[in-house]
Amino acid sequence: MLRVGIVGFGYWGPILARNLRAHPRVRLAAVCDVDPARLAGVAAACPEASVSTNAADLVASPDLDALAIATPAASHFRLTLAALSQGKHVLVEKPLATCAADAERLVENAARRRLVLMTDHTFLFAPPVRRLAELVAEGSLGELQQYSAVRVALGRFRSDVDVLWDLAVHDVAVLDHLVGRMPASVSAAGVAHRGEQVDVAFLTLRFPDGLLASLHATWLAPVKIRRTLVGGSRRTALWDDLEPAERLRLFESGLAEGEAPADEDLQRRIGYRTGEVRAPRLEEREPLATMVAELVDAIEAGREPIAGPTSSLRVVRVVEAAERSARLGGVPVDPATGAPVVAHP
Amino acid sequence: MLRVGIVGFGYWGPILARNLRAHPRVRLAAVCDVDPARLAGVAAACPEASVSTNAADLVASPDLDALAIATPAASHFRLTLAALSQGKHVLVEKPLATCAADAERLVENAARRRLVLMTDHTFLFAPPVRRLAELVAEGSLGELQQYSAVRVALGRFRSDVDVLWDLAVHDVAVLDHLVGRMPASVSAAGVAHRGEQVDVAFLTLRFPDGLLASLHATWLAPVKIRRTLVGGSRRTALWDDLEPAERLRLFESGLAEGEAPADEDLQRRIGYRTGEVRAPRLEEREPLATMVAELVDAIEAGREPIAGPTSSLRVVRVVEAAERSARLGGVPVDPATGAPVVAHP
Amino acid sequence: MLRVGIVGFGYWGPILARNLRAHPRVRLAAVCDVDPARLAGVAAACPEASVSTNAADLVASPDLDALAIATPAASHFRLTLAALSQGKHVLVEKPLATCAADAERLVENAARRRLVLMTDHTFLFAPPVRRLAELVAEGSLGELQQYSAVRVALGRFRSDVDVLWDLAVHDVAVLDHLVGRMPASVSAAGVAHRGEQVDVAFLTLRFPDGLLASLHATWLAPVKIRRTLVGGSRRTALWDDLEPAERLRLFESGLAEGEAPADEDLQRRIGYRTGEVRAPRLEEREPLATMVAELVDAIEAGREPIAGPTSSLRVVRVVEAAERSARLGGVPVDPATGAPVVAHP
Amino acid sequence: MLRVGIVGFGYWGPILARNLRAHPRVRLAAVCDVDPARLAGVAAACPEASVSTNAADLVASPDLDALAIATPAASHFRLTLAALSQGKHVLVEKPLATCAADAERLVENAARRRLVLMTDHTFLFAPPVRRLAELVAEGSLGELQQYSAVRVALGRFRSDVDVLWDLAVHDVAVLDHLVGRMPASVSAAGVAHRGEQVDVAFLTLRFPDGLLASLHATWLAPVKIRRTLVGGSRRTALWDDLEPAERLRLFESGLAEGEAPADEDLQRRIGYRTGEVRAPRLEEREPLATMVAELVDAIEAGREPIAGPTSSLRVVRVVEAAERSARLGGVPVDPATGAPVVAHP
Repeated sequence: MLRVGIVGFGYWGPILARNLRAHPRVRLAAVCDVDPARLAGVAAACPEASVSTNAADLVASPDLDALAIATPAASHFRLTLAALSQGKHVLVEKPLATCAADAERLVENAARRRLVLMTDHTFLFAPPVRRLAELVAEGSLGELQQYSAVRVALGRFRSDVDVLWDLAVHDVAVLDHLVGRMPASVSAAGVAHRGEQVDVAFLTLRFPDGLLASLHATWLAPVKIRRTLVGGSRRTALWDDLEPAERLRLFESGLAEGEAPADEDLQRRIGYRTGEVRAPRLEEREPLATMVAELVDAIEAGREPIAGPTSSLRVVRVVEAAERSARLGGVPVDPATGAPVVAHP
Repeated sequence: MLRVGIVGFGYWGPILARNLRAHPRVRLAAVCDVDPARLAGVAAACPEASVSTNAADLVASPDLDALAIATPAASHFRLTLAALSQGKHVLVEKPLATCAADAERLVENAARRRLVLMTDHTFLFAPPVRRLAELVAEGSLGELQQYSAVRVALGRFRSDVDVLWDLAVHDVAVLDHLVGRMPASVSAAGVAHRGEQVDVAFLTLRFPDGLLASLHATWLAPVKIRRTLVGGSRRTALWDDLEPAERLRLFESGLAEGEAPADEDLQRRIGYRTGEVRAPRLEEREPLATMVAELVDAIEAGREPIAGPTSSLRVVRVVEAAERSARLGGVPVDPATGAPVVAHP
Repeated sequence: MLRVGIVGFGYWGPILARNLRAHPRVRLAAVCDVDPARLAGVAAACPEASVSTNAADLVASPDLDALAIATPAASHFRLTLAALSQGKHVLVEKPLATCAADAERLVENAARRRLVLMTDHTFLFAPPVRRLAELVAEGSLGELQQYSAVRVALGRFRSDVDVLWDLAVHDVAVLDHLVGRMPASVSAAGVAHRGEQVDVAFLTLRFPDGLLASLHATWLAPVKIRRTLVGGSRRTALWDDLEPAERLRLFESGLAEGEAPADEDLQRRIGYRTGEVRAPRLEEREPLATMVAELVDAIEAGREPIAGPTSSLRVVRVVEAAERSARLGGVPVDPATGAPVVAHP
Repeated sequence: MLRVGIVGFGYWGPILARNLRAHPRVRLAAVCDVDPARLAGVAAACPEASVSTNAADLVASPDLDALAIATPAASHFRLTLAALSQGKHVLVEKPLATCAADAERLVENAARRRLVLMTDHTFLFAPPVRRLAELVAEGSLGELQQYSAVRVALGRFRSDVDVLWDLAVHDVAVLDHLVGRMPASVSAAGVAHRGEQVDVAFLTLRFPDGLLASLHATWLAPVKIRRTLVGGSRRTALWDDLEPAERLRLFESGLAEGEAPADEDLQRRIGYRTGEVRAPRLEEREPLATMVAELVDAIEAGREPIAGPTSSLRVVRVVEAAERSARLGGVPVDPATGAPVVAHP
């Protein structure tokens, strides 16, 4: 049995608790929150778990193998570092850390101690994304050419992080999961219309092989849209979380591979033609159940999990580069170095 | 009667012809195309119009008051200049010209000769955009905060212009029409995946007052999406040309003006709440009929039309800036000067 | 505190339990199921509730004020009668009973003993239906003219009841809730394609004032549709549970009240015009929480609840009439008498 | 060349004219309308066609091989009979006639004279229906089990026919085209809410093999819906003319052929699961072009066309039976005999 403790029992902690407890080889052994009121229901709901208002108790406890950290973003680095130092595997809420330097230190630490470090990039475990990842991996979409993700809604304003670290990070993680590498440059625009934190952000990512990506994230739109277009040379996928019956659709490209459409001719024949559309069947497992299974398997096998250090670090680098670009008025930034990329005309 | 000639009778010319002839105070007096085959049907369809394979005939004709130019983009500048020089009002296919310098010369020329110069930015006359413009003008959306336009489909590849001048220009024109001013900077990413011309483009526009805009234009996506989100402090509008029954929808912002949402509190109350949604009734006039009426009225009144020189020039400047930014790897460009805007960190 | 016991702890019982316990003036005091395995989790989850495998224990218990009966439909009559006889208020899963004679006996019994009897017609408490009912009541739709409900999906096959008693009953209840009276005749068609029970059913209801209604219910369609059109002389409402952002929409009738459209004239002007569409904001309370509140309030006030005896009995009569009509090959049946209605040509 | 004359040049006539003229082996030789104003534009638009205000001229003309009759429904029988009597092939607007007796006489007449008689059931030639018909014919949907068609909108009120003969007839024709046989009984409900003609109608059709169908047709709904569900034992098709990108979708049944789902077990596994969805690519030919081609081919080959006498007669019988059922308060009517079908309980 893997003995897990949860640090932070606000909105996300109880959801994690439910999913951890549902795994046959996990025992939820401890729960911690600075606010004792939040711990009130724990005894009834999880009688097997001890409770504490001091994270240090769990970090130091010899009776825990792993910690799930669900505290505000600012404390992720400190708590994760402490947990790793005490030999514990860590699952941490996204983002892994709020700057690349911190994330690097965590990654090194986990590697040195051979501990599993995983970020809770929940969407990587959502059925449409799992299917998308398979399709991309098997070449079903062809060469990726364009990617556009819109994640807008009203509310869940945050005062501890901006919309880049809160929402855009989801799409950065999904894109990273699909392509497994960093963009050559990132540019961004962000504005704080309502409060102190940037609440509207647009990101553009340029990959060395020509793939372009655009992300739009905001808390300010009173219409909920969660739509990602993944365009490849063979097929284009549309992932729309608000189309319950067809969350993932695949559109056949009407063009033969390599066909170079000349103006007048092909244009007329093609028109705005639509080819066959397919909505593949998706598995129906809850994303967090899949994530917990991945965590447990990775710990048992001593391997790097999905959403593990390598990809989590890339995600932090990209978001950090976007933040810097936004501050620089949109100048592209290389996420590998953090430096502006200014071509000389 | 306004005597109008059409130069260029390929795809768009006949559509213009139909709409010009339907106006009670317009006489379609001449049609010209370099390809005599295209003129074959003119005699039967428009017996009142003379035909020619030489644009110079129409430009010089004393029997025409105005020319409608529907030729490939590269010839717009030359033909429009010639027509203005011969004292003719001009309606020209978008874009007005393919560089700002040319566009400026046309604008100056038209101003000096007091001639009407209008670009066929058809979407400005589409019922949803007309309604949107009213809503923005009357303050119904509040202060504009974010704008995101997606215009993707498969086909209508062009070899004479790239996707910026062909598709993104529509959305630049609509946005310009709504806000009536130029962005402080434009950045862009564009790639030519299929042929010689850029066929996937993402643009980001930053306005001095904090409005951010993002455009996505491509010929390469085998799914047709035409969706524009216009987010204001009071309401957000969604214009979706593929939702026939609700092409324009308005979403009430759930937030009171100026309300600064604190994290935990408001967040919980707001959740992802949805307010009232309204799809206003739209007029049902064909956009080109409205455009022709605007052209005729402007000529008769000697006033600047919608899609007239001032806005058309701004549109050309913005697209040109986007092109330059894309060539510079995404460095933002000031459309007023054409110069890169590099903040020093 | 209202002391409530739950009889039947399969799929629905635990959901009821959660909602009953969440009410501040309810104490969940006992849970019963014939299958002891289902009671295993009760002690941990609801430590305050006693458990039993014998419904008679709860029926007879002096420590309970009300019973919630969530057993298979066949036992509703027997258990409800027993509970009423022991002076207990009853909330029973839909349908109240599977024949009108039984339902009548329950209604009489409850009336005589002044006990609250309520059927768990959950959809009556769903936000879109509550809003619809307000709109109909305040005359906002005008006079109701047509009603069409489609409730199709794959699965949740039942062997104890057919699709009329399982699914169509929901829409019969909603329609009854909106109009508050019985149709003059009901005709139906039903077929058992897969198993023993009718799994595809179409119903037609004719009301004395000209309102026509059509219901389509099936377990057999591998596409999920839940759509109800409520057409009135002033407005038409569309309730679609699978449009998360716009579950209820209102379409303005383009016709003035009483306007009698002559053929050629108005037809051309009207075309297929679309008027303004509005999606009113809906409350966000869970239907079952509203239902529990209604139960408690009705018991405390000694009044008839929504989904009380009067309407529940009408619902049973209509479904029974539909069953009879289907068996008679579609001959209309008067739900008040159960007799075929055959006009003589 | 097939020499065709058009009788009736109101709304539909000019559309027919355009499509007839576009066929390489058709010559539009004459056009007739009682209203000379409608003929005004013919000379310019179709200089090769003679014009007349007297249908008798065309009926008697030795220079015509076929007539296309696009007059009000009441005159279809008389004009078609006259044309057939003069040895002319006939394409007639739907419905073929407004009673079965008349339709029979036309069918006999055409058969005796070996003339092609075709009803303009345009939807039979729409790409989604053509694809649907192929799918049904090749068994791709399995055995048909349920059919539900909704055709509602506001407007195009008719004073010459009711909504059964105007709108429901489309869906009766499509269903007949798919299954090629008549239902055992038809029941209907219809009300005239606005004018003299029935403007809301619901039909139920029962086929001998268990297929049930339901149609909803109205002019009175200020929301446009055109949706047909065709449910088979293997797949279910959804044809929605207002989903431009996916007008036809196919949903895989999650159930194995013959699998009899037991209550508790399968139900849980199935839940409301969704299988794969596929939107097949559709041809992009205009329905009327396909229809004209079918007419010409049938005349040239001397064969019965799609929408020929056999199916057109069945369609008239079914609509007539529905009308009778509605007048009888919903008693089912056998379309083969026109007699009520009353099972004795």
